[in-house]
Amino acid sequence: MTRRVAVIGGGSSGLACIKCCLDEGLEPVCFESSNDIGGLWRFKENPESDRASIYHSVIINTSKEMMCYSDYPIPAHFPNFMHNTLIMDYYRMYADHFKLIQHIRFNTKVSQVKQRSDFSRSGQWDVETENSDGKKEKHIFDAVMICIGHHCQPNMPLHDFPGINTFTGKYFHSRDYKTPEEWRDKKVVVIGIGNSGGDIAVELSRVTKQLYLSTRRGAWVLNRVGNSGVPIDLSFNRFTGFLRRNLPFGFFCSLAEKRLDQRFDHALYNLKPKHRLFSQHPTVNDELPNRILSGTVQVKPNIRRFQGSSVEFDDGSVVEDVDLVVFATGYRFSFPFLASQVLSVTENKASLYKYVFPPELDQPTLSIIGLVQPLGAIMPISEMQARWATRVFKGCIKLPSVAAMLKDIQYKQETMARRYVTSQRHTIQVDYVDYMDEIAEMVGVRPNVFKLLLTDPRIGLSVVFGPSTPYQYRLGGPGKWAGARQAILTQWERMAKPMQTRPCEVEPKRSVIVDHDDYIHCISFALFCLVYFLENAFS
Amino acid sequence: MTRRVAVIGGGSSGLACIKCCLDEGLEPVCFESSNDIGGLWRFKENPESDRASIYHSVIINTSKEMMCYSDYPIPAHFPNFMHNTLIMDYYRMYADHFKLIQHIRFNTKVSQVKQRSDFSRSGQWDVETENSDGKKEKHIFDAVMICIGHHCQPNMPLHDFPGINTFTGKYFHSRDYKTPEEWRDKKVVVIGIGNSGGDIAVELSRVTKQLYLSTRRGAWVLNRVGNSGVPIDLSFNRFTGFLRRNLPFGFFCSLAEKRLDQRFDHALYNLKPKHRLFSQHPTVNDELPNRILSGTVQVKPNIRRFQGSSVEFDDGSVVEDVDLVVFATGYRFSFPFLASQVLSVTENKASLYKYVFPPELDQPTLSIIGLVQPLGAIMPISEMQARWATRVFKGCIKLPSVAAMLKDIQYKQETMARRYVTSQRHTIQVDYVDYMDEIAEMVGVRPNVFKLLLTDPRIGLSVVFGPSTPYQYRLGGPGKWAGARQAILTQWERMAKPMQTRPCEVEPKRSVIVDHDDYIHCISFALFCLVYFLENAFS
Repeated sequence: MTRRVAVIGGGSSGLACIKCCLDEGLEPVCFESSNDIGGLWRFKENPESDRASIYHSVIINTSKEMMCYSDYPIPAHFPNFMHNTLIMDYYRMYADHFKLIQHIRFNTKVSQVKQRSDFSRSGQWDVETENSDGKKEKHIFDAVMICIGHHCQPNMPLHDFPGINTFTGKYFHSRDYKTPEEWRDKKVVVIGIGNSGGDIAVELSRVTKQLYLSTRRGAWVLNRVGNSGVPIDLSFNRFTGFLRRNLPFGFFCSLAEKRLDQRFDHALYNLKPKHRLFSQHPTVNDELPNRILSGTVQVKPNIRRFQGSSVEFDDGSVVEDVDLVVFATGYRFSFPFLASQVLSVTENKASLYKYVFPPELDQPTLSIIGLVQPLGAIMPISEMQARWATRVFKGCIKLPSVAAMLKDIQYKQETMARRYVTSQRHTIQVDYVDYMDEIAEMVGVRPNVFKLLLTDPRIGLSVVFGPSTPYQYRLGGPGKWAGARQAILTQWERMAKPMQTRPCEVEPKRSVIVDHDDYIHCISFALFCLVYFLENAFS
Repeated sequence: MTRRVAVIGGGSSGLACIKCCLDEGLEPVCFESSNDIGGLWRFKENPESDRASIYHSVIINTSKEMMCYSDYPIPAHFPNFMHNTLIMDYYRMYADHFKLIQHIRFNTKVSQVKQRSDFSRSGQWDVETENSDGKKEKHIFDAVMICIGHHCQPNMPLHDFPGINTFTGKYFHSRDYKTPEEWRDKKVVVIGIGNSGGDIAVELSRVTKQLYLSTRRGAWVLNRVGNSGVPIDLSFNRFTGFLRRNLPFGFFCSLAEKRLDQRFDHALYNLKPKHRLFSQHPTVNDELPNRILSGTVQVKPNIRRFQGSSVEFDDGSVVEDVDLVVFATGYRFSFPFLASQVLSVTENKASLYKYVFPPELDQPTLSIIGLVQPLGAIMPISEMQARWATRVFKGCIKLPSVAAMLKDIQYKQETMARRYVTSQRHTIQVDYVDYMDEIAEMVGVRPNVFKLLLTDPRIGLSVVFGPSTPYQYRLGGPGKWAGARQAILTQWERMAKPMQTRPCEVEPKRSVIVDHDDYIHCISFALFCLVYFLENAFS
């Protein structure tokens, strides 16, 4: 009997879930509350409640080779960092190609997800939906995949800002920011130096009279444009991941921080935080240094209080006649349709085995997909989680005991608490490669580095020293894709392709395309083998 | 008897001329055709004919410590790269401080400048002006300083673009571009990758559906944000200038190009030109690489032809439905009020001794100020030229023989032809430090490096290895300024000051502030002395 799976949400995670259900012979029914796919990435002039909303110019911070679904590379001519409209184009191509749309019920909101009375035996769920006409329906599902993301309710900590009620200017959450025109020649304060805060500050600073960027902690700022102009996330690979795990944390941070300081000295720009680079979700912003150096963005400390139209900062400085304050203070997530005994969320913390399964259910038929914040792309992670979850639903993979799961959860929470700055932003933080490998291991699709190096050294070297592109998880095992090898071999070409819009008789440096010289490869590889051996010998 | 000097134009060069005239006891009368000072740098919504015009967001590409007048540092809290409104603020402060405004006759256009009949004896000029009411006046002046800049008539080579008359979209010169709003979701082609072209492309790319940047030759792209975030022009100093002069041209270019390619590989981005870095006036653009990598700016070759709404490029690619073409194709200069036997300009070439004096006049009482395109800031150069010219007018400095001047002009033209790509852009190109030193030598204010190193080593080291800030030319000689030494010693503080808007408990790296470690100083200095000795011994 085919099992029916409810997929809640038709964004990037929901699409991957439908696809994985189909791959595994499950029958997905996706409920999408709006009238289209794309979730977060679909630009809407007017934000809907309980949904994230993006501004007009949003460009993703992960490059196309890193963010794509593992068996469907993004077209070669698409740019490396895609505008939200192009991301939507890709989603539509993906949905068309795998015929996903027919499984989606649009304009249908899930109001309740409840264990059936025979849950402990059947693992089934009662799902209640309501469509845009107000029509309610009840359904029974064998499993549920929740794909509503973690950008649900805007986090707007007004109580932390005394006097905000006296403020005579306008203020809103970053989700309500769309385009800059309205703020030409105005004074604007942006609160928060996360990715939204940084982006919005830079964009507004091109038109405002003055833009103030208020940050309590400061931040390390990364660029999309990495060394030699290669997308920065293509330089995060198994080898660097391995170094990160094996070098002392502080030392590894120092190496990377030094490189960032070469771009611009974070202390000189008064952005340097007290915490280390890898203790915070990174802010990616190529244009901020130039905006600071030209004074159009002025970095300020935390706001102490508002009074009328003026804003006082923690250092006592006051800015008068502020027209707008943008709270780029992030989002909170919650699952209002789930009973709290199934899954409770407090301060953005949810107890989930590897961020996917509530550990204490009698049956593992509920999964949360995409509830991670990776140092890397989220789409391939959602897809990997979906591959895992669907195979768990089918019984092909067994979860460990409740005790083992709880222990793993606790271990992860403790590790996170040690490493990261305490913040609602850092409750679901994962390292891309480590986490992908962790889940892939359970699915049985983690690439076997040593076997590859011996049997297919070209691919083996790519897997170790090349970018950890998602295709690597389709080389073998369940869900193997015949195109994976070729996709890996052509990934650098796809990176270079969109820029070849003007014939240029000069060849790019080879090292840019293969990302490392062969010479360095060999030395690094020897080192890698040695430490990998030691690592495994003592673990 | 005080000599009367006509200063034509009240922009950055004109202001410096008035100031220098006053310093030398001359009596300046400045004619400014508009109603305010600032010239190019004053933003006007509607461009006036025969004047350059800037767009709303223009920020200067030279940093404040390098672009200021030599005895009037820009306030410490001003940002390093100033928005045009701040440049205007600085000009107003300068004009107020030295009481320059009272010497300016606004709304007065110079229609003719003619040698008087007794010119060969008196050196006097008949100057005819017309004010905005149409009232004409005739004046007699002992000398004339022409400060109209080299951004006069927009250069719009429509004849090079077949089919432009069939083009159904809109097109205009970059001077007519003001703000991007109007072009939201449109397709725009920008022609030319000079500083205007690059800036406008980046700005428009934030709103357009697609922005195409057409460039025939490609370009090397520099950043304002230099190593460690220090303004890039602070790293051009006597030492690097010395290296440039003494290392083979190709080798020196390679060194610098390699650094630029580390930011982004110009070949990978299909921007790499066939010419070398120092064979072209540099394009400064911090944001372009990120816009190319995200595909919002697409680099295209030269345009082959227009047809209706479509644009065909040299590689045969066609873009349909183009809404706007911006010709960022530069400016031409001319002196319509001067008889051609006094000074003729063909293809942006004028025969001028050190870009200032027409060599064949009987009396050296006419000077062109600011008619240079430096790899650096133009304001201090105009000021230095004005210091020279005023002292020539007074007779304190004698010009060489006509033959010697013509020989120097020819030598400069030949050197330029060898080094630079042939283009109207490269007819008045100078290297900042070399040219400043050359004029300063004649004025008698070139800093004596060896004497300084012996008598005031702190300043000496700064003069050799520190940025060649204009204050160096006020340390001694005519026009010596008592504040010069202190201004040099505090220049790094003024660089850092505008960013200190958020208390940050971490100190910037010392090397950022003093720009070189002492250790490197010593070695470099020894090397410098050796080669300087050899250079002088064999020249």
